[in-house]
This record gives sequence, C-alpha cells and structure tokens, in this order.
Amino acid sequence: MKRVITALMLSAGIATGYAQEALGFIMPERSPEVNPDSTVTFRLRAPEARSVGVTGIGMQPIPMEKDSTGLWSVTTRLRPDLYTYAMLVDGMRIIDPSNVYVARDIASLSNVLIVPGGNSAYYAVQDVPHGSVRKVWYDSPTLGKERRMTVYTPAGYENNPDRKYPVLYLLHGMGGDEDAWNELGRASVILDNLIAQGKAEPMIVVMPNGNGEMTAAPGQTGEGMYVPDGKYSRSQTGKFENSFKDIIAYTDSHYRTIPDKAHRAIAGLSMGGGHSWRTSMQMPDTFDYVGLFSAAVRWNGNGVEDTEELTAPLKRQFADAPRLYWIAIGKDDFLYSLNEDYRKLLDTTGLPYEYHESEGGHTWTNWRDYLLLFLPRLFK
Amino acid sequence: MKRVITALMLSAGIATGYAQEALGFIMPERSPEVNPDSTVTFRLRAPEARSVGVTGIGMQPIPMEKDSTGLWSVTTRLRPDLYTYAMLVDGMRIIDPSNVYVARDIASLSNVLIVPGGNSAYYAVQDVPHGSVRKVWYDSPTLGKERRMTVYTPAGYENNPDRKYPVLYLLHGMGGDEDAWNELGRASVILDNLIAQGKAEPMIVVMPNGNGEMTAAPGQTGEGMYVPDGKYSRSQTGKFENSFKDIIAYTDSHYRTIPDKAHRAIAGLSMGGGHSWRTSMQMPDTFDYVGLFSAAVRWNGNGVEDTEELTAPLKRQFADAPRLYWIAIGKDDFLYSLNEDYRKLLDTTGLPYEYHESEGGHTWTNWRDYLLLFLPRLFK
Repeated sequence: MKRVITALMLSAGIATGYAQEALGFIMPERSPEVNPDSTVTFRLRAPEARSVGVTGIGMQPIPMEKDSTGLWSVTTRLRPDLYTYAMLVDGMRIIDPSNVYVARDIASLSNVLIVPGGNSAYYAVQDVPHGSVRKVWYDSPTLGKERRMTVYTPAGYENNPDRKYPVLYLLHGMGGDEDAWNELGRASVILDNLIAQGKAEPMIVVMPNGNGEMTAAPGQTGEGMYVPDGKYSRSQTGKFENSFKDIIAYTDSHYRTIPDKAHRAIAGLSMGGGHSWRTSMQMPDTFDYVGLFSAAVRWNGNGVEDTEELTAPLKRQFADAPRLYWIAIGKDDFLYSLNEDYRKLLDTTGLPYEYHESEGGHTWTNWRDYLLLFLPRLFK
Repeated sequence: MKRVITALMLSAGIATGYAQEALGFIMPERSPEVNPDSTVTFRLRAPEARSVGVTGIGMQPIPMEKDSTGLWSVTTRLRPDLYTYAMLVDGMRIIDPSNVYVARDIASLSNVLIVPGGNSAYYAVQDVPHGSVRKVWYDSPTLGKERRMTVYTPAGYENNPDRKYPVLYLLHGMGGDEDAWNELGRASVILDNLIAQGKAEPMIVVMPNGNGEMTAAPGQTGEGMYVPDGKYSRSQTGKFENSFKDIIAYTDSHYRTIPDKAHRAIAGLSMGGGHSWRTSMQMPDTFDYVGLFSAAVRWNGNGVEDTEELTAPLKRQFADAPRLYWIAIGKDDFLYSLNEDYRKLLDTTGLPYEYHESEGGHTWTNWRDYLLLFLPRLFK
C-alpha cells in the first residue's frame, strides 16, 4: 500500500506539492476498521502518549492498548448504528487522524463511524440514484436578511422538469444550523435510500437555519469563524416561527412544489420540534404532517399548561386535523415529562395524535430513527 | 462566556443530549486568534504533552510553549493568506481541537486559517450576495456511470429565471475530487466576492470529479469510506477528457447557459491543468478561455515533444484561437521545466498564449491566486 501511494505522489508530484503547503499526505492507519466479525478496531499511532481511548461511544471512554511500535488500538463490539466519536490522548480530545469523516456540532468536530447492519443500511451511502443537495440563500423580509438553507431535491428532479413534488420542512435543534440534519442526521442519504426502496415518496426537503439571529452556519457569513456567543439563546423567541412564511414563499417560487396543505410536512428535533409545533399551530391550513422529535414544546418558555392561549390555536389547527401529528421521544430524554404533559393536554382537549416512545434519550441516534419512521408516513 | 454557554446547554438540555451521544460540547480555547496587530496566536491545552507545534505553515513546524496551566501557545506573524495547518503533539499530527474549520485533501484533514489583508479579503466570506452551491449527479454514458459534481450558480441565478450565463469548467488535481476547488480553493467564496465587486462576470462554475474511475468523493458513494488505493493512478488515461462532452451536455441541459465557445472556459490545476489542456485541444470549437495552472502538460505520460501528434490538434485548436490561453506556474514548481518545454513548443509553433510566473511552487496558495487573476479575464 505504502509503495502504491508513494509512487503516486512522485508521479504526480503531490509529495512536493503538499510538502510545500505541508497539507501533508498522511499515510493513515486503518481506523476505524470494521472487521468481518462486525467488531470494530480503532487505531492511533502515538508512541509518546501515556493513555489513549475512544470517547463518544457509550458513557465511558474505551481504553486503547499500546503495542511495541507505539500503535495504540482497541477492538470492540458495537451494535449497528452511526456513531460519532473522538479520541482521548492523555486526556486531550482529538479527532481520529485516520478518519477524515467528521461532522461539526456547534463548536466541536467528531469523527463519523457507521457499523453495518440494521438501520445503518439507511445511513450509509448506497449505490442508488442520489438526490441533489443545495446551499441556497433566501430572502426573509420578516427577519430582514438573506439567510442560507439546505435544500434536498430527490433523484430525478433535474430530469423530470414537469413533475411537482411535496415538501418536508425539517428543523434542527438548538446549537445546530442548516447543516445539522444533513451532517449529523444524514437526511439526504436516508432520503435517497428510502426513496430508492419505494418506502418514501420522492420529496423536496428544506432545512433552514432555525436560529433567527443567524444568517447562516458559522464560517458561512461575513461574521467569520465561529466563536460561542449568546446568539443561540435568542432562538426561541417566536421570531423564526413568524418568519416561516418567507421560507415557504421561497420554496414554492423556486422549486417545483405542490403548494398545498396535503403536500407539506414539518418536523424538527428538540428546539426544532418546538419550532414545528408553534409554526404548524400558527399556520393551521399549511401542514398536513407534523413531526415532533424530542420536542421542546415549551409555551412562553415554560411548560405546557391547559390555558386558552395555548388550546385555542391548537383547536384551530385541529379543526381540520393534520393527517399525521406524530410525537416521538426517548424514555431517558430530559424533555420526557414535558412531552408527557403535552400529550395529557392533547388527550384532555380531545386532539388526535400518534405517539412513538423509544429507548434512549436526546440523541441523534434517536432522531435518525424517528426520521426513518416518519418519512414513510408522508404524502401517502 | 462559560456561564452563557452552560446556561444555554441547560436551558436546551444540550449538555444532556451531547453527554448521551457524547458529541461533547467542547469549550474551545481561542485558537487560532488573529490579534489586532495581525499576529496570530495558536493555543492547545495539552498538560501532559512534551512537545507541541504548529505544522503546515512554512517548511518547519512552529514550536509552542507551555504555561503553568498546561496551555501551549505561540504567537507568530503571518503574511495575509489562507493557510491550512495542523498541530504536532509529541510528533503526532492532530487537528486543532479549537478550530472547526477544516478541509479534506485526499486522506487527511487540515485546519483552515485566514489571515486578513491582501487577497484574503477574497477568500473570506463577506457580507455580499452569495451564489448557491449544489452537489448534483450527472449521467456519463462515456464512463458508464452516474457521477457527482459541484455546481456554483451566482447570486441572482434563482431570481432571474430568464437570464443565461457563461460557464467555467474548473478542474482539480490528482488526489482531489469534486470538493477540492470549493474546499481548498474557496472557489464559490472567491466568485461571490469578485462578482460583488464587478470584477468578474456572473458565471456558472462546474467542478466535476476528474478521476474517471470514481463516481464521487470518498464517502459519497456505495464504496464507503476512503481507503487509499490505486485509483488516482488511473486518472490520466484520457478517459476523463473523452467523457467531457457528457459534462457539457448535462450542464447545458440543466442550467441556463449560453452554450457557445465564447461563453465557455476551462481551467484546472496540476492534473486538472492537463485535463484542461487535452480537453480544450480535443474540442477545438468549445472553449474560448483556457487556464493551465501548474499544469501537468504531459503527452503520453511523458514530457512535451515537438511531434505532429501533439502539434496537429494544437494547430486545429488555434486555427480559431482561444481569446485567452493562460499559462501560470510558480518558479519553484516541480512542473516548471515541463511547462517551460511546453511554452517553447507553443513559441516555435507560433501559437499565442499569455504567461504568468509567480513565486512559490505547487500550492493552493498559488492556485487561489491564479483563479483570482484568471476570473476577471473571462467573458469580457
């Protein structure tokens, strides 16, 4: 292997080129390596380190062992899933240098690992027709700025200029941005795979930035690189929900949509679940499918109370009830009791919904699972 | 700062969420920090490390000093530019954990740092109208597969449905893929900035994958995660050039292009310079603008010789000479003499071209500079 690469580098002069900019052609270890018996081996060459482990998988770091050459490794059995992890070297969290697949969440990167089996088949890119993913800028008069969003169009969209499509508006949680559902949620990969299997209708998926104060993901605006500040704390003021008509107007005017309630869905996780909740309530004739994933269904920043202020708009929305109003949460989610309160409110008010309760908590593992369950229900 | 973030995490339960998936909200050091005096400070908290440095900037690592708290740092003066770097901890190359801005090149990641001033203003995202970037799949009958490419459409494209645009086909080097020009080359940012200043015509930029054996960037295909193999060595067989008509056919049928020679440009770096060279030669009536950046102008895998086999197609191309045939290379580039030979061949054959010679070598710093010089010359 090393011979091949070296030969390549010389023939193309890449060694020279990179040496000059020192991007460095790193000859990586195989890490992580999924073994034939479905165990996974992590490797890190760190001869001088005193302790090395894998962090992010499970609650405790997985310790690695050093061999005589200074190569640390550990082989462990992981259930099929998409994992995000990093390595701990003498207590310092680093990206696995051998794994270029990383996802950003707020101000940290983690490596991505897919252990085959089960739902992983939906999270891995397969040899199926692929949709397109666009980073576009839309005008939001309500928020007074041009804002960026990610738009998925299904395979065939470009080649069927007369076909119109339904739209799912898919919203991220606090700390996320217009990249979150595609990066951590694998939305476009999941859509490609479900559509290819005929399990989901071909649809357009619009992933806006739910932080009303932001124009785009960190590093994509004139504000430059990301430095944590108070912005995210101003993302649940209702402003974003009030601006949602701008997102729909852009989508319906720039894509071949079917612009009616029966062909619109809105779903989100955590804060985005709250956004989906309020937006669908405020626009009762707009969405026939609503998905609340681990949703922050806080009314006035607090819990949900059986008040006219809340039940009146809910009753308006349910006067022509959505075809699917889907609530999902994990047993260990810190928002479990909030969602329990909300379900009680819906029950006492006599408003119909479907409920899915999973293991686990407030995690992307659950949100990807929920998306897998929700998508096949749409636009049928 | 820490208080704000902590408050946020609790209010949104992000701490919980991340703890469960252990994406880990890392409270980053400020690294790198560009100081008011334009020096740059790099920081890394690594109490147990014995040596820490910054690598990738200049030929030698920049050593960092440890303070009593275990925080390593160094402040250095860097000329304005976009830099890619990493950190060396006891000899192990890692990504700066405080800097989420990374770019992939072949099988390694590097952090991105922009030091303001000079051309950096073009490399940094500014508050100007932004174009859209799409990852699309096109059919290549010639190569017998669907393949992925990156397409930039300028600001206003979506809102001016009747306007047609010229097209630049922009090709990466060996080891790159359809992401390289946008990630390491900052192409879409450079275009946004030049167009906003009226220095470049609004244009569509098509960035295909020049490795004919590949369908898409690593991790974007059913082949899964990237493992170095011999594929890149099979990228200069002429196959890709022969398939270029498929790329043009897709572009002209899916975007509002002006489909004639006067409104088509092709440019590339290194291997992509070779691809641009051969493709423009094979399609003499197709491109009025040709850019050869540090180009691998190898004929039959060797150098350039004054043979009929080479001069005949060149003369055909120049019978109706391109409006701009632009050759650029750095004095230290390992392809300098190859390009010198090629210029001599053009001179003796009496074929007109423009030549730009820069300092430095086979680097993205030069290729970004060349793009900045080349774009304003197009479609005028």
